[in-house]
Amino acid sequence: MNDGFALLPKPPYYAVIFSSQRNASDEEGYGATAQRMVELAREQPGFLGVESTRGADGFGITVAYWENEESILAWRRHAEHTAARERGRSDWYDHFELRIARVERAYGWDRDSR
Amino acid sequence: MNDGFALLPKPPYYAVIFSSQRNASDEEGYGATAQRMVELAREQPGFLGVESTRGADGFGITVAYWENEESILAWRRHAEHTAARERGRSDWYDHFELRIARVERAYGWDRDSR
Repeated sequence: MNDGFALLPKPPYYAVIFSSQRNASDEEGYGATAQRMVELAREQPGFLGVESTRGADGFGITVAYWENEESILAWRRHAEHTAARERGRSDWYDHFELRIARVERAYGWDRDSR
Repeated sequence: MNDGFALLPKPPYYAVIFSSQRNASDEEGYGATAQRMVELAREQPGFLGVESTRGADGFGITVAYWENEESILAWRRHAEHTAARERGRSDWYDHFELRIARVERAYGWDRDSR
């Protein structure tokens, strides 16, 4: 089921919380790169899942989940990801914040599973 | 500047990552309660900030930041918040996931501050 939610193991694991303000430029190029980055991230060792959304005002939050800090650092060093981040700063974002956190507890609820 | 980004101290602090799928019901009641919960959270000891967005598909992510786990637990026990969570399950959400994480590192970038 591809419904936006990441299917994750039990904690602990790591979260990279990326909040960003898009400008109005280059929707096509941005969208293609964002999609490519998700596909590429899924191939990386230690990747667990990702959740992402953006409102009509261009403010978005993406949370990527990883097994450990090593996998986050390796993804950070990935050449294609590095190039995409450069495009983010030069072209696509007005502002972003990145927070790296260790998930300690998790809880979920689904209407169909009550 | 109220631009969607939380202005946070240096880590460590805690993040409550709430991802949710809204159903199509009661946009007015949901919106009023969501706004009230943000106002109320801002008054709680240990509250640091919140970022939130939801896409046109109804999938949303809210990340609330707190000084420590004690402040998260106290907010969880708050009576009005507890009642709002009940409405969430009975009326507003089809699915949600909650993850509690300790933020260890943070980094930001702003086009105007380069």
